[in-house]
Amino acid sequence: MTDDAKFFEEAVAEARKGRDEGGIPIGSVIVVDGKVIGRGHNQRVQRNSAVLHAEIDALENAGRQPHAVYERATLYTTLTPCYMCAGAVVRARIPRIVIGENSTLNGAEEWLPTMGVELVILGSEECHEMMAEFIAREPEIWDEDYIGA
Amino acid sequence: MTDDAKFFEEAVAEARKGRDEGGIPIGSVIVVDGKVIGRGHNQRVQRNSAVLHAEIDALENAGRQPHAVYERATLYTTLTPCYMCAGAVVRARIPRIVIGENSTLNGAEEWLPTMGVELVILGSEECHEMMAEFIAREPEIWDEDYIGA
Repeated sequence: MTDDAKFFEEAVAEARKGRDEGGIPIGSVIVVDGKVIGRGHNQRVQRNSAVLHAEIDALENAGRQPHAVYERATLYTTLTPCYMCAGAVVRARIPRIVIGENSTLNGAEEWLPTMGVELVILGSEECHEMMAEFIAREPEIWDEDYIGA
Repeated sequence: MTDDAKFFEEAVAEARKGRDEGGIPIGSVIVVDGKVIGRGHNQRVQRNSAVLHAEIDALENAGRQPHAVYERATLYTTLTPCYMCAGAVVRARIPRIVIGENSTLNGAEEWLPTMGVELVILGSEECHEMMAEFIAREPEIWDEDYIGA
């Protein structure tokens, strides 16, 4: 198993955890030098949060980090980031994102490469299926969260 | 006093509150139909948060809102938003931002209008001075927060 596959599996584990809590099943981990420094999942339902998307939750859980750490990081996330999360990556100068799937939403996928961020899109069926199942069951929560992508 | 001046004063009050707590003096409020629905200030120092910029703190404090609310909102903020905060505005489709000053940082100022967001820049000396004083006293904290603008 490649490192990307191994760390992506940790992001999927976060998405499953979110699903099992009744939340939107999106998960992320941030990896630096072969170690996970932050992990998180969407907290809209669980914490009534409008801003704790999986990526923001993982960044928050990684704590306050210096430039030199973010610049060596890869973000693994189960769904293409929205503009808020993409902007957080651009701001931190995280150079690379590994994305589970982009069929539910393509978010800021076109913008990120123009800002120098490398994207790797895996086309994960499991990630897509978790989202499809959530959206079918809770269309209003999804609509609320993904306003404007 | 215009409505913009009145609500901008509330964002400045948030920045002063942050300063008085020993934090980075940046404040924001979100206004819909003539009422403040969320207010916040940068929480890097106070809550050791890497993501609770003033704008994100205000969005979080505004709670989970439907599309129709964000689309009628104006964000008042004492400093030009970074890309994370700008992305949060784009995602929510908040159409207008009133900014205190853009001389400390110009952040995502060029990008936001390309995404359909109207910017009003007030050139507030008080906001600039609060930031200059903080940066002179705590250059490392500022550098940590404003990585990548």
